[in-house]
Amino acid sequence: MSQNKLWGGRFQEPTDEFVERFTASITFDQRFYKQDIRGSLAHAAMLEKAGILNASELADIQRGLQEIEAEIEAGDFAWSIGLEDVHMNIEAALTERIGITGKKLHTGRSRNDQVATDIRLWLRDEIDRIEQQCIRAQAGIVKLAQQEAETIMPGFTHLQTAQPVTFGHHLLAWYEMLKRDHSRLIDCRKRLNESPLGAAALAGTTYPIQRELTSDMLGFDRPTANSLDSVSDRDFAIEFCAAAALCLTHLSRMSEELVIWTSAQFNFIKLPDRFCTGSSIMPQKKNPDVPELIRGKTGRMNGHLIALLTLMKSQPLAYNKDNQEDKEPLFDAVDTLHDCLRAFADMVPAIQANKDEMRNAALKGFATATDLADYLVVKGMPFRDAHEVVGKAVAFGVDEQRDLSEMSLAELQRFSDIIGADVFDVLTLEGSVAARDHLGGTAPNQVRAATERALTHLQSFSA
Amino acid sequence: MSQNKLWGGRFQEPTDEFVERFTASITFDQRFYKQDIRGSLAHAAMLEKAGILNASELADIQRGLQEIEAEIEAGDFAWSIGLEDVHMNIEAALTERIGITGKKLHTGRSRNDQVATDIRLWLRDEIDRIEQQCIRAQAGIVKLAQQEAETIMPGFTHLQTAQPVTFGHHLLAWYEMLKRDHSRLIDCRKRLNESPLGAAALAGTTYPIQRELTSDMLGFDRPTANSLDSVSDRDFAIEFCAAAALCLTHLSRMSEELVIWTSAQFNFIKLPDRFCTGSSIMPQKKNPDVPELIRGKTGRMNGHLIALLTLMKSQPLAYNKDNQEDKEPLFDAVDTLHDCLRAFADMVPAIQANKDEMRNAALKGFATATDLADYLVVKGMPFRDAHEVVGKAVAFGVDEQRDLSEMSLAELQRFSDIIGADVFDVLTLEGSVAARDHLGGTAPNQVRAATERALTHLQSFSA
Amino acid sequence: MSQNKLWGGRFQEPTDEFVERFTASITFDQRFYKQDIRGSLAHAAMLEKAGILNASELADIQRGLQEIEAEIEAGDFAWSIGLEDVHMNIEAALTERIGITGKKLHTGRSRNDQVATDIRLWLRDEIDRIEQQCIRAQAGIVKLAQQEAETIMPGFTHLQTAQPVTFGHHLLAWYEMLKRDHSRLIDCRKRLNESPLGAAALAGTTYPIQRELTSDMLGFDRPTANSLDSVSDRDFAIEFCAAAALCLTHLSRMSEELVIWTSAQFNFIKLPDRFCTGSSIMPQKKNPDVPELIRGKTGRMNGHLIALLTLMKSQPLAYNKDNQEDKEPLFDAVDTLHDCLRAFADMVPAIQANKDEMRNAALKGFATATDLADYLVVKGMPFRDAHEVVGKAVAFGVDEQRDLSEMSLAELQRFSDIIGADVFDVLTLEGSVAARDHLGGTAPNQVRAATERALTHLQSFSA
Amino acid sequence: MSQNKLWGGRFQEPTDEFVERFTASITFDQRFYKQDIRGSLAHAAMLEKAGILNASELADIQRGLQEIEAEIEAGDFAWSIGLEDVHMNIEAALTERIGITGKKLHTGRSRNDQVATDIRLWLRDEIDRIEQQCIRAQAGIVKLAQQEAETIMPGFTHLQTAQPVTFGHHLLAWYEMLKRDHSRLIDCRKRLNESPLGAAALAGTTYPIQRELTSDMLGFDRPTANSLDSVSDRDFAIEFCAAAALCLTHLSRMSEELVIWTSAQFNFIKLPDRFCTGSSIMPQKKNPDVPELIRGKTGRMNGHLIALLTLMKSQPLAYNKDNQEDKEPLFDAVDTLHDCLRAFADMVPAIQANKDEMRNAALKGFATATDLADYLVVKGMPFRDAHEVVGKAVAFGVDEQRDLSEMSLAELQRFSDIIGADVFDVLTLEGSVAARDHLGGTAPNQVRAATERALTHLQSFSA
Repeated sequence: MSQNKLWGGRFQEPTDEFVERFTASITFDQRFYKQDIRGSLAHAAMLEKAGILNASELADIQRGLQEIEAEIEAGDFAWSIGLEDVHMNIEAALTERIGITGKKLHTGRSRNDQVATDIRLWLRDEIDRIEQQCIRAQAGIVKLAQQEAETIMPGFTHLQTAQPVTFGHHLLAWYEMLKRDHSRLIDCRKRLNESPLGAAALAGTTYPIQRELTSDMLGFDRPTANSLDSVSDRDFAIEFCAAAALCLTHLSRMSEELVIWTSAQFNFIKLPDRFCTGSSIMPQKKNPDVPELIRGKTGRMNGHLIALLTLMKSQPLAYNKDNQEDKEPLFDAVDTLHDCLRAFADMVPAIQANKDEMRNAALKGFATATDLADYLVVKGMPFRDAHEVVGKAVAFGVDEQRDLSEMSLAELQRFSDIIGADVFDVLTLEGSVAARDHLGGTAPNQVRAATERALTHLQSFSA
Repeated sequence: MSQNKLWGGRFQEPTDEFVERFTASITFDQRFYKQDIRGSLAHAAMLEKAGILNASELADIQRGLQEIEAEIEAGDFAWSIGLEDVHMNIEAALTERIGITGKKLHTGRSRNDQVATDIRLWLRDEIDRIEQQCIRAQAGIVKLAQQEAETIMPGFTHLQTAQPVTFGHHLLAWYEMLKRDHSRLIDCRKRLNESPLGAAALAGTTYPIQRELTSDMLGFDRPTANSLDSVSDRDFAIEFCAAAALCLTHLSRMSEELVIWTSAQFNFIKLPDRFCTGSSIMPQKKNPDVPELIRGKTGRMNGHLIALLTLMKSQPLAYNKDNQEDKEPLFDAVDTLHDCLRAFADMVPAIQANKDEMRNAALKGFATATDLADYLVVKGMPFRDAHEVVGKAVAFGVDEQRDLSEMSLAELQRFSDIIGADVFDVLTLEGSVAARDHLGGTAPNQVRAATERALTHLQSFSA
Repeated sequence: MSQNKLWGGRFQEPTDEFVERFTASITFDQRFYKQDIRGSLAHAAMLEKAGILNASELADIQRGLQEIEAEIEAGDFAWSIGLEDVHMNIEAALTERIGITGKKLHTGRSRNDQVATDIRLWLRDEIDRIEQQCIRAQAGIVKLAQQEAETIMPGFTHLQTAQPVTFGHHLLAWYEMLKRDHSRLIDCRKRLNESPLGAAALAGTTYPIQRELTSDMLGFDRPTANSLDSVSDRDFAIEFCAAAALCLTHLSRMSEELVIWTSAQFNFIKLPDRFCTGSSIMPQKKNPDVPELIRGKTGRMNGHLIALLTLMKSQPLAYNKDNQEDKEPLFDAVDTLHDCLRAFADMVPAIQANKDEMRNAALKGFATATDLADYLVVKGMPFRDAHEVVGKAVAFGVDEQRDLSEMSLAELQRFSDIIGADVFDVLTLEGSVAARDHLGGTAPNQVRAATERALTHLQSFSA
Repeated sequence: MSQNKLWGGRFQEPTDEFVERFTASITFDQRFYKQDIRGSLAHAAMLEKAGILNASELADIQRGLQEIEAEIEAGDFAWSIGLEDVHMNIEAALTERIGITGKKLHTGRSRNDQVATDIRLWLRDEIDRIEQQCIRAQAGIVKLAQQEAETIMPGFTHLQTAQPVTFGHHLLAWYEMLKRDHSRLIDCRKRLNESPLGAAALAGTTYPIQRELTSDMLGFDRPTANSLDSVSDRDFAIEFCAAAALCLTHLSRMSEELVIWTSAQFNFIKLPDRFCTGSSIMPQKKNPDVPELIRGKTGRMNGHLIALLTLMKSQPLAYNKDNQEDKEPLFDAVDTLHDCLRAFADMVPAIQANKDEMRNAALKGFATATDLADYLVVKGMPFRDAHEVVGKAVAFGVDEQRDLSEMSLAELQRFSDIIGADVFDVLTLEGSVAARDHLGGTAPNQVRAATERALTHLQSFSA
């Protein structure tokens, strides 16, 4: 047993076979082998600078680790459950390959600071990948908004027709959500970008290590400030999952709208066949699978966030084995967020607006009732009274099954005699949207200006 | 494309390659191939009874499915992402193998009722496996309780010494938790054991199917009552996860106690080396990894429960693609619960009580203060006044660093002159525990009687 | 200070003022004063039978508690933060009122078993109230289903038209959900109905108490089996919240449908004005507030469930102050579930189906495509081939903007020459629903039979 | 009815009485009356600048609102359920007070943008209050750390003795957690500080409003960019709750340590009586209620976070009634975070370290085993071999019940002959902690330097 385990000295019986399997993390933590090797290379280089390794030992370690990385990437590396985790698997392979020098690599570090370093490096890389998809998704939305800046649709509150808006304006609301998500990811990345290496088991180490050096080599902004905190902190995983859960919540809202809009009853948009699937029994079906699935994936994101919060609750410092449970939720959160953003980035540009259907829908539901009230206010009536007048006109319209614009002037004047012939200008859809012409309003020229600002903002990230 | 997809007729472009991968479930739902085949065999047998298949077609299907099952179990089956899920993979393989008859198997059913049937069958099987581990864990606890029925330890509230209890009594509290968990699993199994087969896509089918027949063949208690509900209901998964999350919460409490008890400061118990692991840097470490890891796994259970509840929130009927997300949380919840119960069942019998340490700890902390108050009540003092008197005696003891039993009679009488020499009988640990001699109390003979009842109860499940 | 606190003897400084407020529970736990008094009355009666109180002391306590209850109900009771909780407030008031005998009431019990008893009694009462609303809601749904047994609407999967169903059939899916919820509440009530009284602080008591007696007096099925478990168990609260969260999830699904159905685009149903509200700015708005709000309340239910699971995670036995946090989530879960079920019970009977709109919608979307495939199967084509043929016919219909029933025989025969003139029988909506005539199917006579069974089932609870 | 409701015009029956109560928010949203009035004052001032109100109308509105605010603060305002929410209650009171001008205030806004503005203003104010407590808590921790920079205690991993650390170093790990929490609150505040006013119902308004003006008057950084997003966005509430849940998770970890440390078995610290409470039955009890309760409150924070995420999942744009459910979780999260931080800020400075107990504990458990291994490495042995040697020495020590420092040189040399007499220097506690002398390490001078940096950092917030 002491052959396998790196910690066997004081133990008098081998680990139970089921326990070995139950407690091993190698089946999932091999995922960050690249970061583990990268961290070991930096650590070794620092040990050499500090005089703990000599130049030839360093060279052996570098060569050995590079060979191991190549072997892993070729799929030839034999991962062992008995060696518990990615760290021990790689270190054991190194020693097997380069002999006694391999045993020196662990000088001045522990798996506790090693795994903390690996996860941070890995998550930083993944956030960078996710950011690219987030930018693509935002850009896709903005470009569609630009194209649909004048397309009129009903704006909804309570899923009831509220006021006419442009489709482009609606899409820009999606953009704003993702913009905030993007900024949260940036904050998260900034906060996590500190190097725990050198915290060792929990108290630091007695060797003359140079934490700033490894921090720099690994692209961190600075070393972490407290060794106990460094090995027990998993804030970055929780903060990432919180940002991811909120982003998926946004995607679930957009997905819900796509699903509703592709229903036969709304029929506002068309999704190309390549983003849909069919039914094994109903030959006519074309289902909006992609938005539905993304909507469903909100569940796992909320779940992962709760998993991590529950995990950390009440844990005394410093490292506890519980923390091994941080990886699987984080891994899946990263994959899910990346793929869902990619799916949106792919799908949004392919959305086709059924402009006639949108316009026809906006003509129903008394969408310009607020415009009529505003008209009365301009003519001198207090808003609350105007609201009451229009409410009665609507009630009449509901009975008669006619919209406001379909009533005669005489009919309208029954509700208020200050209504004049000019009322019909404000009751048109185009008039209604054009009149909301201030920052953030739905007027087409506001939408166009907003898309310009958005595209400029997005370009600032590609530099 | 129409070669691959079973629904391609109305589609004019193939599924996007990323979308195909993003929406496929075959990477995880192949897990219930056995239940899928079992369901298909029952469905085919029913179709034959209903005159929809003839005997030789049925025989072909049976042979084909059995061969496919053998192939899967031998690891020779080539699962295809293009075929989306376990159902289509198996059906396509069947048709390839037995020709046109394979295409008849889907008569009168849809993937919607098929997957609902598969999950219920699968979960039912898994609950049965979990139940065995749950019984093993309960039995292990009860046997240890029997053995430790007279071992005295401090009972804690607020992690402060409260009153002496027996270790056996404490362990029986664990047993009670698992007993309730067990009964919740039984309720869950009972409620899920209905057959959705025949609900088809959502509305039932026009073929003369016999739902009672397939229900019986598959060991269900009855067919489900409404076809729309049958394809959209995932209550069983949520109910199972809720029961599992509560069970893991219980295991987290027991694990917390094991971790605290194995600390050098408490040192109440010893866990054998085979349930512990060491440190890569600290040679002396022997860490209670198994309870720590189980405690941590509470996180993923709460997470899976929330994942499923979030998933189903606001979904309109009937089946939506979102529901594909039900499987991974459920699978992991099943595996986690099974393994954690198994780990407890293996580990508990190996716990060694450090009886002297436990006893010494019980001698501290004024554990018999309540007994002194009760003594005063028996002598005629109202309980509230007795509480006050003893409180003052304890304050004195804290200052003097002496327990109540270490004070002289004269000292005790300073606080109340009705204290007599017989007080020292009630201040012994043995006297204290023996005196709590009623149903549910900590007296050793109550503990022994409770273990007898528990073992009898557990035996009723092995019949 | 020792005047106020019932535990002040050993303390040398008073509680910090902010701490007193921060740790007090009286602001919310006064809610179960009734159950606290009821439990005290049973405990006192038992103490008298056990010879610990005499008859006149018991009479004093009974009188005192009854007066206090009256005072509370009249709103005249002065709750004190300094007295921490409902138990101490009532006990102090009793002692003030009847003198020294009041101080004897706490003999043989602790706040730990007292609060456990109070919550169980309270929750049991509340479940009974909730059950009544649950039955009302089920009955309302079933009666509407009965009335709409022949009303045809499109059945949806993926919110895409799937197959025609009857509105009554759809409603019965709602009934099935609530039926399972109901049965979970019954299981929860059964499991919680055990008496913790006598567990005292954690170990039982030295007094000759009779736990079966108080258990019987309080309507419990039996005393709990282990004293440590009795004071630390909060399973009932978690199990209730899990059942409640699932029920709200169901209500969120029904609410989502109501919101979609009341949209101008669907317009399947009308909700009376009294269940809707308007807008402060848009005079035409009539918003389905009640279903929207219920849908939103799913959030707090999931939240309360997670609150309680998190709370109990990792708590060592027995009672810890953390447990005080069990009440507010439970209280709000109870109120929310009750009110949401009541709102549904009130609202459902007032739903008016827009039958023409429903029918017209069912005529679109190729709802009878499956029927055409089934027709081809009956004529001898394997189901998978039939699916392909119909898929092509649908693709043609999408292009031509015509439903299957709107094509000529010649047109249909282009896709398969085994189609005959009799095909138009199966392409009618009435034919389609009537043909799904098996247990759980959507045929009107199945719906009627199902409503009969449901009403009989519901009547069994009113006895 | 149209007297009460501001939207009654089109309605033909009054709201159901239960529905009115069920849907009203006035019972809780009156909490931000101050922000509502502040927002109305800014809106009115802007309307005057825009020529919609004249100077005297503005003066009336200002006077009216000021009087209403005074009335509310005096407790004399009669809130009405019939008027639904804080906005309508105040507006109705204004109109009653100043007549027709009051009805003009709602010009160009809706309750949708009004409530969004109110919550942001309110949350911003509350974050500022919370920040003060967060700074107080951090400062209290750092000062205690400064004082205990040389106090030696065992550092734990897996709650097993790992290596000696200083108590000050351990406390600084707490500080780091709160420092991150603090920075997350700052980020959240920054992101929320945009003005939704002017978004109106969802599309903006036709009046010539000046959004930058109200934004400036209310201290916002800028107006929000999209009107639909402005009324449907609740990110700020979710982001705040995520930050709060993580902060409470941190406090739960510190609380867990306080609870463990105050146990009789650890006895590392003493909490003053004023932060503890006693038991109604056990006269000796002094319970660490404050940390226990805070630990428990982690539950409600996780719950509120999930409540809000669930709430927003799948909501189509723009405003839906569901959103009314955002307030109660947010309110309680704010109060809980504030009070828990205040409790920590009050309590931490009062913690008394039992230095002898801490030191004695550090002497046990082979805390200096890593130092021995490091000693061997310095003498030329590869780390992994040194680990093995020390492991065997520890196994011997466990058998003999002696620590490493209690073995003779001859005994130690049995395990490696390169051990010399100088070994005993590295086996002392003081030598061990002093040797970890690098950034983030536990050496007392590192701790002192870290506290200096922390105090400087904290002072930067008080300017």
